Amino acid sequence: MASIAKGNAVIGQSGGPTVVINESLVGAIERMRGVKSIPKILGAHHGVRGIVNEDFVDLAKVNKTTLEAVAVTPAAALGSSRDKPDEAYCEKIFRVFEKHNVRYFFYIGGNDSADTARIVNEMAEEADYELRVFHIPKTIDNDLRVTDHCPGYGSAARFVAAAFMGDDRDSASLPGIKINVVMGRHAGWLTAAAALGRQDRSDGPHLVYVPEIPFETDTFLDDVRRVYGRHGRCQIAVSEGISDETGTPVTVALAEKLGHRVERDSHGNPQLSGSGALGDFLSDYLKQNLKKRYETLRVRSDTFGYLQRSFPGFASPVDQDEARNCGRKAAELALGGDTDGSVVIRRAKTGKYKATYERAELCDVARETKDLPRSYMNRDGNNVTKKFRDYAMPLVGELPTIGKLV
Amino acid sequence: MASIAKGNAVIGQSGGPTVVINESLVGAIERMRGVKSIPKILGAHHGVRGIVNEDFVDLAKVNKTTLEAVAVTPAAALGSSRDKPDEAYCEKIFRVFEKHNVRYFFYIGGNDSADTARIVNEMAEEADYELRVFHIPKTIDNDLRVTDHCPGYGSAARFVAAAFMGDDRDSASLPGIKINVVMGRHAGWLTAAAALGRQDRSDGPHLVYVPEIPFETDTFLDDVRRVYGRHGRCQIAVSEGISDETGTPVTVALAEKLGHRVERDSHGNPQLSGSGALGDFLSDYLKQNLKKRYETLRVRSDTFGYLQRSFPGFASPVDQDEARNCGRKAAELALGGDTDGSVVIRRAKTGKYKATYERAELCDVARETKDLPRSYMNRDGNNVTKKFRDYAMPLVGELPTIGKLV
Repeated sequence: MASIAKGNAVIGQSGGPTVVINESLVGAIERMRGVKSIPKILGAHHGVRGIVNEDFVDLAKVNKTTLEAVAVTPAAALGSSRDKPDEAYCEKIFRVFEKHNVRYFFYIGGNDSADTARIVNEMAEEADYELRVFHIPKTIDNDLRVTDHCPGYGSAARFVAAAFMGDDRDSASLPGIKINVVMGRHAGWLTAAAALGRQDRSDGPHLVYVPEIPFETDTFLDDVRRVYGRHGRCQIAVSEGISDETGTPVTVALAEKLGHRVERDSHGNPQLSGSGALGDFLSDYLKQNLKKRYETLRVRSDTFGYLQRSFPGFASPVDQDEARNCGRKAAELALGGDTDGSVVIRRAKTGKYKATYERAELCDVARETKDLPRSYMNRDGNNVTKKFRDYAMPLVGELPTIGKLV
Repeated sequence: MASIAKGNAVIGQSGGPTVVINESLVGAIERMRGVKSIPKILGAHHGVRGIVNEDFVDLAKVNKTTLEAVAVTPAAALGSSRDKPDEAYCEKIFRVFEKHNVRYFFYIGGNDSADTARIVNEMAEEADYELRVFHIPKTIDNDLRVTDHCPGYGSAARFVAAAFMGDDRDSASLPGIKINVVMGRHAGWLTAAAALGRQDRSDGPHLVYVPEIPFETDTFLDDVRRVYGRHGRCQIAVSEGISDETGTPVTVALAEKLGHRVERDSHGNPQLSGSGALGDFLSDYLKQNLKKRYETLRVRSDTFGYLQRSFPGFASPVDQDEARNCGRKAAELALGGDTDGSVVIRRAKTGKYKATYERAELCDVARETKDLPRSYMNRDGNNVTKKFRDYAMPLVGELPTIGKLV
């Protein structure tokens, strides 16, 4: 039996928050509390930045009621960070760990956080410093490797699916073309979830576009024309990250086509985020090209924005449980003697949906990401397949009821 | 005792839908079903347009399970319409009523719908045609006169309040300036609801701007600077309809100030709706003016859009009940012998929150709207008062739990 390392624990949260990231935090805390060899459980305020600044919150004293309230609260209760530590930064982290006799490090985040954990772990090994380093996965993008899916995805997917269900009824009430822009710069997992509430062929989203498949404005126009001709309306799901064949973001390509000015930063990179530009450009493009045929055409767009990762009181119960379990599992692995790793979720291969939790190598989770498989999209690349629905449905919990009269 | 009119009933839905507009529909239907003097209950497909086109749905045959599913489904289950009938249009409506022996007309909508009901009613009176005409209120804008509040507002307010709660935690995780644009072209009721989930002084929204109070970009900049200096972040609620002292929409004024092109329609009216422009312009304005002082300043904006009126599975239970009761009450008044009117909600003057339902004159509800009272906003005109919170809190139901560690 492996020895239990004697020393303090540090836990931090990183990157874009999710609705259940605090479940993982609480899961790890509750598993470590009362373990005699861990005198202090320190929360790093704003992730790695809090570590290098020695800005810690004592988590051992937080009462159970507060912890449970924190667990159901969206966004990083400890504060998050966008810092992506290089070797020098990791060196600083490691020095702080030595100084505070930290023997357990848990980092909740995406692939960059796994990479940070990996580097710090290597430093500890080289210095022959006993340290347990665990990455706990979270991302609404669902793009981490090895794991079947990522905590945070189920709840974001639930929000997006429900939003499309309600918006589809709204758009059937006052028919027209409705474009909804969904988060996901490189991966289409969340945008694909737009289709999870669909009950029959007349329901939206009628078209779904993801970053993995090159977006062509002409094909898009044809698609919309066809759907509008059939249903007298068209609801569209679009990833914020859709790009053309050359990899140019559609926001930029369309802006130039429509004669709009594109804001660029000092490096010449176009500004894409935190903006309604893509939805507005797609709307303008459709209006310009369809108004002749349909004079009174109504075209609207919404960009769902930060609500997708932060809307409270609407989490997927499955996602909540799993996020909590991932936090617990990381602490268990560390207390069980494993020195490092990431927690991954495995899905039972047959029968009813069931998740189990395993350890993966940090290097297998770090850096690279996982695209939406091509088989989860139809041949035309403009909607999801049953295979995707079968994959994603168990993750979002029960969706709202929809009734129809016409 | 008044006689019960013998003939068919028509019910329709109008204007921008809400999450509970179908509760009112179902409330009226369930009260009328089984009444022998009403052989047919006809749903008008897409409001007044469905009436003039004689495009009706037979509602008597819809089973109870479907009706209950419809009741909790957002948006107009019969379809809605943006038509604002003039005298000639109302004349057509009236002719269809005569043709189909319609003796009951229920129209669920805002002040324009009350006006349509008023005109049709006058025509029936002049023609000595026995007709019961009732308006059933709905609007997320909460701007109808006479009634204490409008069905549809509580659920939209609940969505907005919750969205701000989650977004506030997200923005505390990764601090910066966050602007959220809320629906409400002329009235600030819904934007004010952004503040309902606030628990302490550090919580957002730190600033709230409504259309009723002229918006000055310089004052806005000062406000943001002050809040950011104090809290290291700033969450802002802005009505889509904020305008300057001359009544010019801020979108237009700021666009010109920032050198952006403003899209205008053939009448020269600026395009404001279904667009992220206001949030983007306010972001740009703050970035341009604050970046010198705060180099790494993070400014983001979201435009909540149609989710505010259509997000399913998150309605206010109070609002659901009241919307149902307004539908029932309209049918009851009509069956009780009243010939016309609108249903209004009264609030108990003392003690625990309690709603009762009364009849109001159509002319008192039609056309004009009700602004957010000045006393519901603070002296600086940049946040809500306790008086507003006391007014609005009972309408939204229990808000999600928020827990904090730092």
